[in-house]
Amino acid sequence: MYKPFGRILYGGDYNPNQWPKEVWEQDMEYFKDARINSATINVFSWAKIQPSEEEYYFDELDEIVDMLSKENYDIVMATSTGAMPSWMYRKYPEVGRVDYQGRRHKFGQRHNACPNSPVFQKYAKAIAEQLAKRYGSNPHVTCWHISNEYGGECYCENCEKAFRVWLKKKYGTIDAVNKAWNLEFWGHTVYDWDEIVAPNALGDGMENGTDTAFAGLSIDYRRFMSDSMLENFKMERDAVRPYVKDTPITTNLMGTYKFLDYFKWSKEMDIVSWDNYPSYNTPWSFTAMSHDLMRGLKDAPFMLMEQTPSQQNWQPYNSLKKPGQMRAQSLQTVAHGADTVQFFQLRRSIGGCEKFHGAVIGHVGHNNTRVFREVKQLGEELERLGTSILGAVNEAEVGIIFDWDNYWALEYTSGPTEDLTYVNQIHQYYKYFYDKNIGVNMIPFDADFSKYKIVVAPVLYMVKEGMKEALTEYVQNGGILITTFMSGLVDQSDNVYLGGYPGPLKELAGIWVEEIDALAPEQINTITFTDGTSTTCNLLCDLMHLEGAECLARYASNFYVDMPAITRNQYGKGYTYYFGTNMNKDGIAKVLEMAVQAANVAPVISEATGLEVTCRKAENCTYYFIFNFKDQVLPLPSCFDNCTDLLTGQIVTAGKMMKQYDTVLISMPN
Amino acid sequence: MYKPFGRILYGGDYNPNQWPKEVWEQDMEYFKDARINSATINVFSWAKIQPSEEEYYFDELDEIVDMLSKENYDIVMATSTGAMPSWMYRKYPEVGRVDYQGRRHKFGQRHNACPNSPVFQKYAKAIAEQLAKRYGSNPHVTCWHISNEYGGECYCENCEKAFRVWLKKKYGTIDAVNKAWNLEFWGHTVYDWDEIVAPNALGDGMENGTDTAFAGLSIDYRRFMSDSMLENFKMERDAVRPYVKDTPITTNLMGTYKFLDYFKWSKEMDIVSWDNYPSYNTPWSFTAMSHDLMRGLKDAPFMLMEQTPSQQNWQPYNSLKKPGQMRAQSLQTVAHGADTVQFFQLRRSIGGCEKFHGAVIGHVGHNNTRVFREVKQLGEELERLGTSILGAVNEAEVGIIFDWDNYWALEYTSGPTEDLTYVNQIHQYYKYFYDKNIGVNMIPFDADFSKYKIVVAPVLYMVKEGMKEALTEYVQNGGILITTFMSGLVDQSDNVYLGGYPGPLKELAGIWVEEIDALAPEQINTITFTDGTSTTCNLLCDLMHLEGAECLARYASNFYVDMPAITRNQYGKGYTYYFGTNMNKDGIAKVLEMAVQAANVAPVISEATGLEVTCRKAENCTYYFIFNFKDQVLPLPSCFDNCTDLLTGQIVTAGKMMKQYDTVLISMPN
Amino acid sequence: MYKPFGRILYGGDYNPNQWPKEVWEQDMEYFKDARINSATINVFSWAKIQPSEEEYYFDELDEIVDMLSKENYDIVMATSTGAMPSWMYRKYPEVGRVDYQGRRHKFGQRHNACPNSPVFQKYAKAIAEQLAKRYGSNPHVTCWHISNEYGGECYCENCEKAFRVWLKKKYGTIDAVNKAWNLEFWGHTVYDWDEIVAPNALGDGMENGTDTAFAGLSIDYRRFMSDSMLENFKMERDAVRPYVKDTPITTNLMGTYKFLDYFKWSKEMDIVSWDNYPSYNTPWSFTAMSHDLMRGLKDAPFMLMEQTPSQQNWQPYNSLKKPGQMRAQSLQTVAHGADTVQFFQLRRSIGGCEKFHGAVIGHVGHNNTRVFREVKQLGEELERLGTSILGAVNEAEVGIIFDWDNYWALEYTSGPTEDLTYVNQIHQYYKYFYDKNIGVNMIPFDADFSKYKIVVAPVLYMVKEGMKEALTEYVQNGGILITTFMSGLVDQSDNVYLGGYPGPLKELAGIWVEEIDALAPEQINTITFTDGTSTTCNLLCDLMHLEGAECLARYASNFYVDMPAITRNQYGKGYTYYFGTNMNKDGIAKVLEMAVQAANVAPVISEATGLEVTCRKAENCTYYFIFNFKDQVLPLPSCFDNCTDLLTGQIVTAGKMMKQYDTVLISMPN
Repeated sequence: MYKPFGRILYGGDYNPNQWPKEVWEQDMEYFKDARINSATINVFSWAKIQPSEEEYYFDELDEIVDMLSKENYDIVMATSTGAMPSWMYRKYPEVGRVDYQGRRHKFGQRHNACPNSPVFQKYAKAIAEQLAKRYGSNPHVTCWHISNEYGGECYCENCEKAFRVWLKKKYGTIDAVNKAWNLEFWGHTVYDWDEIVAPNALGDGMENGTDTAFAGLSIDYRRFMSDSMLENFKMERDAVRPYVKDTPITTNLMGTYKFLDYFKWSKEMDIVSWDNYPSYNTPWSFTAMSHDLMRGLKDAPFMLMEQTPSQQNWQPYNSLKKPGQMRAQSLQTVAHGADTVQFFQLRRSIGGCEKFHGAVIGHVGHNNTRVFREVKQLGEELERLGTSILGAVNEAEVGIIFDWDNYWALEYTSGPTEDLTYVNQIHQYYKYFYDKNIGVNMIPFDADFSKYKIVVAPVLYMVKEGMKEALTEYVQNGGILITTFMSGLVDQSDNVYLGGYPGPLKELAGIWVEEIDALAPEQINTITFTDGTSTTCNLLCDLMHLEGAECLARYASNFYVDMPAITRNQYGKGYTYYFGTNMNKDGIAKVLEMAVQAANVAPVISEATGLEVTCRKAENCTYYFIFNFKDQVLPLPSCFDNCTDLLTGQIVTAGKMMKQYDTVLISMPN
Repeated sequence: MYKPFGRILYGGDYNPNQWPKEVWEQDMEYFKDARINSATINVFSWAKIQPSEEEYYFDELDEIVDMLSKENYDIVMATSTGAMPSWMYRKYPEVGRVDYQGRRHKFGQRHNACPNSPVFQKYAKAIAEQLAKRYGSNPHVTCWHISNEYGGECYCENCEKAFRVWLKKKYGTIDAVNKAWNLEFWGHTVYDWDEIVAPNALGDGMENGTDTAFAGLSIDYRRFMSDSMLENFKMERDAVRPYVKDTPITTNLMGTYKFLDYFKWSKEMDIVSWDNYPSYNTPWSFTAMSHDLMRGLKDAPFMLMEQTPSQQNWQPYNSLKKPGQMRAQSLQTVAHGADTVQFFQLRRSIGGCEKFHGAVIGHVGHNNTRVFREVKQLGEELERLGTSILGAVNEAEVGIIFDWDNYWALEYTSGPTEDLTYVNQIHQYYKYFYDKNIGVNMIPFDADFSKYKIVVAPVLYMVKEGMKEALTEYVQNGGILITTFMSGLVDQSDNVYLGGYPGPLKELAGIWVEEIDALAPEQINTITFTDGTSTTCNLLCDLMHLEGAECLARYASNFYVDMPAITRNQYGKGYTYYFGTNMNKDGIAKVLEMAVQAANVAPVISEATGLEVTCRKAENCTYYFIFNFKDQVLPLPSCFDNCTDLLTGQIVTAGKMMKQYDTVLISMPN
Repeated sequence: MYKPFGRILYGGDYNPNQWPKEVWEQDMEYFKDARINSATINVFSWAKIQPSEEEYYFDELDEIVDMLSKENYDIVMATSTGAMPSWMYRKYPEVGRVDYQGRRHKFGQRHNACPNSPVFQKYAKAIAEQLAKRYGSNPHVTCWHISNEYGGECYCENCEKAFRVWLKKKYGTIDAVNKAWNLEFWGHTVYDWDEIVAPNALGDGMENGTDTAFAGLSIDYRRFMSDSMLENFKMERDAVRPYVKDTPITTNLMGTYKFLDYFKWSKEMDIVSWDNYPSYNTPWSFTAMSHDLMRGLKDAPFMLMEQTPSQQNWQPYNSLKKPGQMRAQSLQTVAHGADTVQFFQLRRSIGGCEKFHGAVIGHVGHNNTRVFREVKQLGEELERLGTSILGAVNEAEVGIIFDWDNYWALEYTSGPTEDLTYVNQIHQYYKYFYDKNIGVNMIPFDADFSKYKIVVAPVLYMVKEGMKEALTEYVQNGGILITTFMSGLVDQSDNVYLGGYPGPLKELAGIWVEEIDALAPEQINTITFTDGTSTTCNLLCDLMHLEGAECLARYASNFYVDMPAITRNQYGKGYTYYFGTNMNKDGIAKVLEMAVQAANVAPVISEATGLEVTCRKAENCTYYFIFNFKDQVLPLPSCFDNCTDLLTGQIVTAGKMMKQYDTVLISMPN
């Protein structure tokens, strides 16, 4: 059950060790001025607080904690295990990872521990426990942050051995493995657990790192690796728990990051937190989707653990956030379910590869900067907003399935085209609802579909156990399911469902896909709707037959001209829409519009607008966040006429012209 | 001497082990329906039939053989050594290859045995012998298929040692090696055989894998590697032979695959077979050339061992074959000399990286599919065609030299341009003849040139021992030789012929090439013919002087304006045409047209047409295959008026409009 | 103090060992005919002259030296250590390098010795001493050439250990290292020297090889690696010295080659020499800049050790030098300060990867070639020119700072854009002066700035100790400093200067840069000058405030519209110009023109011309080299009317039309 913090946490990463004490004091003043009320500390301090196997050194950390406590900050305390001390590598080289190329890494960089190294585990657990023992009872430590941005992968011998144990537990017998991965193909039948080899470039993985000879094996390795790191998380969490009571324990996730099954992770986390780093050209709908995904992990409000107040350093082109952009981005985050707004970082580092990463206090060292002023303005606004928004919920009648197994499986698949990417497919459909200001929940494969009028399952390549039944029941009972090409193809081991595509979804969709054509990038096809209008499509074209479904659009060219491209099938009280090809934006919108009408799904406000309008519903009122993310001026919708903008305290009038990044926050009684 | 099978083999790879027995029975019915009469089995079954060092398990294979035998299939029996069992890796890691980057590979993928591993050799020989002993006398096993798609390379210590032995045999003394590779350059003189290092990225090979510090060394390593795998083939062949009498033994080649010297290989094979996998944008002339090359290896009909009935899975964009396209492609194969049409695969696999590779029976599991119907139609037509075409020959008055040593040497050469690729150069000239429906044989460097009116030797960079004399004699006696820039430059060790380019061809061509200019991609030159017409050229421009030759075209720009670009030299009774630059298609056609006129070379039919018309001559009649590979409708030439199309049994009339992929097969008495 | 040779050395690399003796004799005649008077020998002969650990074999080298001595050649004697003999690798594998990927290399290629291998050092020193002992007193050996084109890097354990020693010497304590590299970032604090790891891809280096987690560490590794090879150079130099008296000792550098700090190297070299290999599309201004840099290393004339007479082999497109181009390029070299013109190579090799690299004598073997004739013409002209030009100086009122520490640091920096490259930035500013025929010296960071009216310091990212004071004093006293965005950011350890950008240059420039925006490649901004004219800019845009400076141009768009983009600040008697963004060519020219006017800097001739006019001042006269490097015809400026062209001996008249590559050399009394 979600339990909000006592206030909107507003702050971020703080690592004052590089600076003399007078800077610390100065920082406290600046932060107070900016209404900053929280700090994340100790993220990469392992080497500092444990200089050797036997020694701990907490003096400096104590000082920081004391100072922050005295000033009544909410402290997010990290366990510092995101980067190992050098003495550990020197003494136990096996704590370093072996990469996809088969190379053992030495001391360097970060997020680099072999998750299955008993040595790493021993010391990580110990430091986490030490920290919890020391700071767990401090009431200002209101959140524990395990490690940092878990990710990557290891292919060392320890992992290989642990993988075999993981497999044994999952499959029981070696024959079951042979069958699951269809190892008879290419003569890979194994007779002993020890014959199973980690699928990197020296094994069954292909040189490019994205293909594999046996997707079943490689997907299981991803599952195992995600689980291995999750075990690392759980180990530290459990070491911390006894000392911290019900203080929430989290770790910072990374949106649509590929390598970890975040739905599985979130079950072990008290609260989800994540780091939001859009590029200069990331669509705002993509960021919105990422927030909705992070909220969807636990179907609850989340923490924004990191964002930059100005620019990043590690992207190819690290553009500045324009005036108002950071504010709008922060409020969009809150709009989509965040109860915290935290920056990386409060003070810009003087050296190391992130020294040009934005911060609240820059290298100039004072607060007379545009960035600071914008941080302060937002701080004041968040303070003015108060706490009643904490825990408010984002309601949605539309659910979009996001599934890491599908993510991995779809992108491992060899054929029919190499241009298919999972997240971009999902985003295409999400974007329609975003543009219409229709609320969306990003949901797991095993969600309770009955909560939604529409469930969208794009490229539902892998249909895992129970999904067929759940989706069937959903549609049977009146739900509207939208699915697409490359769906229903394989089971959870990446073996094809026989009997015709889309396998377990065949009856539900009322079609049979006989063949799948791949179009090269220079090739475009056209489809014609029954109303005579046309749109273009590309990438993949299903050649399908109606088996009960009605045809909404047909191909207008190629040898499969006149074959159905888009269909709708009534099933029980509901409908299944099937997209046999990758339509352009307009085509997608046209069909989803039909579904929305049929399902009677309502947007947040009835007026059409180019603005983003997103709602969070609190106990007594509903908050409407209105954003202009377009580079043109747009009028405030009429339903907000004469309302008070909670950010400024000003009354706004309908038709008020909003410039890019202008944001208005209005509450209405429920 | 070529000995045809008793019928056109029509079938393909069959691996029923994944399926229950009722599927096997169903398959037999479907195959019979489609007129399938052959099956290739046991390609990747090593791990299955030899579960450990001492055990063999043939029960399942016995069942398959029995079933196919009972149904009177021609069985193509593979020896299964294309992928090693995992126990072999585990016990003897040295059976895995060391790659160009110097990394030892573990169990994974396929085609992965170190060819010089005594362990691999021992077990490969043993399994081949076991199989031959067991099935060699079965009269239904009409072809033996050693391993699968030999290829790749290994740089392990065993290979390094074997390379030294190979070198000692070739060169005798270390001084001869120093001289052959010109090791004095960059101070590489070696004094002991053990100082010779395999030329991968850690030795004399460059990081990119395509360049090398010493081409002589790297070319010899390619020869050695090709020979090493050929020894693997011979070892299995010789293990099989005693048990199979004169049943032909083959292995499946891969067209213009770079790493194996197929002309050398073909001498050890009873019949050539190959796997034809064009991409969606491969020109049909390229496929035709590949067939002609495969036929040319033994100057005899060949087997098509693999093609897909519908789509591949491993290309970037795996387009479907359009209606009629598989039929046309199959018949083009027969037209160019194939006596078999075989698919990979008869039934689509449920898992593994080729699960989306096309098959006769798809995942839907029944035969009511477009693909099956097309397979069946072709099966009926091939059955109708009968057997008199078996062994029929493809006659040609034009020979084009294709030589793997040249392939390797040309592409290892550092300078003058990195954009030169061997096969594309060959194809440019082949295409002219293809477009004119002039038959071509692809011939080795030591062919009997006297059989041809025209011999084309594009980029004949390396002129090996005996070639100068053979070509001189050929032209002296009235032959027409066509050669180009980048010819006559080096001997078989990649050392330059002194005294002026094109070295041994200088006198024959009546020219001296003083310099070779390289044009960047954005640079174009123009040449003007003596008749005043012009064409463009690029890539490379020879700066040459006439030494007896006449000039056919001169450069129209750059500082070598007015210097000869294209020449013809009368030598004895013949002529040598020399192309000093890379002309566009029209320029090449213009000059080759002159040569064709001069040589009195006739196309297959006199009428000009955009159709492909290809002939095979049987004992009593000649088969004319007429294809429309263009995307426009074209009329049937008049010479075929009122003939019977052997495929349909229908009479065709001249002018009949043929759509894309329409194919007509007509026989005329000799 | 620079001491010229007795004549302009004209010759190049000569390696006659591949050829029989009659060729040697023939060569002598050809070379005499071409006025060649020098030969570089023994560059890659180590394996030949030391066939084993104990044996030396000098017979062949003796013969070559005797022959050249007899013919009165200036011999440039190389020490042959650019490539190690194979026996050394076999017996001592540690002499091979470990690359950035962590792989130990085997015998292969060249320039491959681990610089910190005691074995390599022992044998390199010994062979150098042997050679010096044997040939040091030969008066024809007028130059010693240590090794060849030093470069590359090694990451082996020996280097790692030597790095720690180097660090200890530099920093004294481990705490100083922690602070210098800001190791607290990402928890990298080290407690023991042995915990420091070489920063390759397995350590703190990123996979791409151009980024790093800790720039301070990686820059120090570059310094260490440059120093390590410099120690190799010094070791051989010192081994040779006792036997050669004051014969100059050099090694051939490579222009703007990144990995060695040539300013540091040049202090140990008696004379600078370098190898000039422009590509077909290298701007002539870039080559001129490279010469000026090589001259600037010791602020003295230099040797051109290598260039090709015709074409290279190792570039993607090895175009021929057009008629006159080699002559013009050679004379440009002399114009910019060379006292030698030497080719790689005198005779084209028959094998090895450079066999298609141009040579004076080509594979044809005779001298009746365009290349030879051009070489001979130039030889005659250089002979005619005589010796009074030797040692003549290139005067300049403009100095441009080029600094390897900045080169490394700027390109290691993560953010704000990945498109910034050091040398291209320098060249942008150099080009303005080149186009105006204004002499430029390329100067080190610690040059005596007072010698220059203008000092240009583009992207002076790292301001090292003493620079702030030196630049301040320079401007204070009336100097004009021009600097740009990405300047004054970090100290020599890559730690940011606090207190506002551009750090130590802030006061001098009279500005404060608050933020730095990065523009993606598709983004362009505009700036408007105070005179109303506009120009475009891209890449990076500083957002700055005037703190005393005047604004020369303002941004015309983006949210920082109207903020200053280009400024000028009077400081003491001088001025600092600051370019806050990357203007296009015209914008740069407009501002530099102002500076040139203000500084009263004069071009070589007052007349504007598209020709390059470059001066060298001898004791009594000044040499004017006039080149047409444009592809249009241009008139000889009027100031040269009626002068004698020293190359041809002809009198030239003003307005004489010069074609591309035409070159005129005129002397005027001082």
